[in-house]
Amino acid sequence: MNNATLETLLEHRSYRDYTEQAVSDEDLATIVSCAHRAPSSVNGQHVSVVVIREQATRTAIAELAGGQSWIAKAPVFLCVVIDFAKTDAAARHVGITQVLHESLEGFAVGCVDAGIVLASAMTAARSLGLGTVAIGGIRANPAKLIELLGLPHLSFPIVGCSIGYFASEPLQKPRLPIQTFRHDEAWHGVPDAATIDAYDADLKRYWQEIGRPDGLTWSQGTATRYARVYHPETKPVAARQGFLVDK
Amino acid sequence: MNNATLETLLEHRSYRDYTEQAVSDEDLATIVSCAHRAPSSVNGQHVSVVVIREQATRTAIAELAGGQSWIAKAPVFLCVVIDFAKTDAAARHVGITQVLHESLEGFAVGCVDAGIVLASAMTAARSLGLGTVAIGGIRANPAKLIELLGLPHLSFPIVGCSIGYFASEPLQKPRLPIQTFRHDEAWHGVPDAATIDAYDADLKRYWQEIGRPDGLTWSQGTATRYARVYHPETKPVAARQGFLVDK
Repeated sequence: MNNATLETLLEHRSYRDYTEQAVSDEDLATIVSCAHRAPSSVNGQHVSVVVIREQATRTAIAELAGGQSWIAKAPVFLCVVIDFAKTDAAARHVGITQVLHESLEGFAVGCVDAGIVLASAMTAARSLGLGTVAIGGIRANPAKLIELLGLPHLSFPIVGCSIGYFASEPLQKPRLPIQTFRHDEAWHGVPDAATIDAYDADLKRYWQEIGRPDGLTWSQGTATRYARVYHPETKPVAARQGFLVDK
Repeated sequence: MNNATLETLLEHRSYRDYTEQAVSDEDLATIVSCAHRAPSSVNGQHVSVVVIREQATRTAIAELAGGQSWIAKAPVFLCVVIDFAKTDAAARHVGITQVLHESLEGFAVGCVDAGIVLASAMTAARSLGLGTVAIGGIRANPAKLIELLGLPHLSFPIVGCSIGYFASEPLQKPRLPIQTFRHDEAWHGVPDAATIDAYDADLKRYWQEIGRPDGLTWSQGTATRYARVYHPETKPVAARQGFLVDK
């Protein structure tokens, strides 16, 4: 291990067991500042973050994300929002009509930059000794979340994370071997059957170790989830928000 | 400043001036490992990274990204790929048909996770004393890049970054005020005219300080870029790769 930043990144795990200890205003401000300074495509800054501490709001988000109790328990939830309302304000300010949000490119760059913002906030939180878990489940009911947070046209709540002091430290979930992730100079192929079987066995051992013997293997879990559009509201609600993706 | 990780995140800037000093295999392996351990939606691991060190390939990428000479100069380029070919291999392994990649949800979660991977790699590189700059310009010519890297059906090169030792340290570009990024409990509105004017003036001062007095203000630059789909190949090439986004 070369330094504390690398340790933080390499030791990533998803924390879902929180105490009720509050996160200080100062730590929260630092976390949001780190996210705010993260790289932004063409300096457009088309991402916003809603910081949620109110218990009632977190309880509602836990519910609409499919019953994720840790969102209600952890004292902070950050909702990362693709915010082309902000850049539309810039365009209107100089009398120009914004078009980018109607394209797949626009939604894509919004999503990429939201991921960058999320990762930066999570790394900052971990460096402060806090636990955090990424939440994509907010896309299960995006219309309700938009209403709850008062989000405007040309914005979309794409991902979030809970932040708090953790009550217990989870085991790190094994990943596919690095060779399936890293390709040198050119793409070298998908994982072969033996690699998938070996990782499935790794993951099975992990589920047993954490007392969830019904946990699915990677191939079964991924295949089952990806056999359907598991958040089917993303497309119609994004369209209603102005993200037509027809260009 | 509380710790080195926060300092790394808060001091983010885009490095575009590199020496020819090589990045060690060990540092590169560490950077890719940090990206590999980053959060992955439902542990799907539908992202891959192509590590490019060959000069000819980097020269070609610099060209197809619109003439970004720093890609040719910096010794390493990481291309972050949305890789639903990998999860398709898992689905086939258990006799299930993958559908997610045909939906906007699928492309979105691919983009978000690619952003997370990119940010993790960039933070790791910075912590090792390396410079780095995010590159979205690879989407200017995605078909050529797909051919160059041998990327398969169901994959898309969405973003990348250059990595190397920097020859000079750039000034940090000012951002919009944190209030335009952070919303507490609920969304509070777009930046008003006075805020936009003040930030435009900040950015103008920055361009003058770095000797580029022709640099655009935020409102003018964003409005001009976002008045069109500045990477119009994203939608048709993604469709050709299997990302139909019609669900």
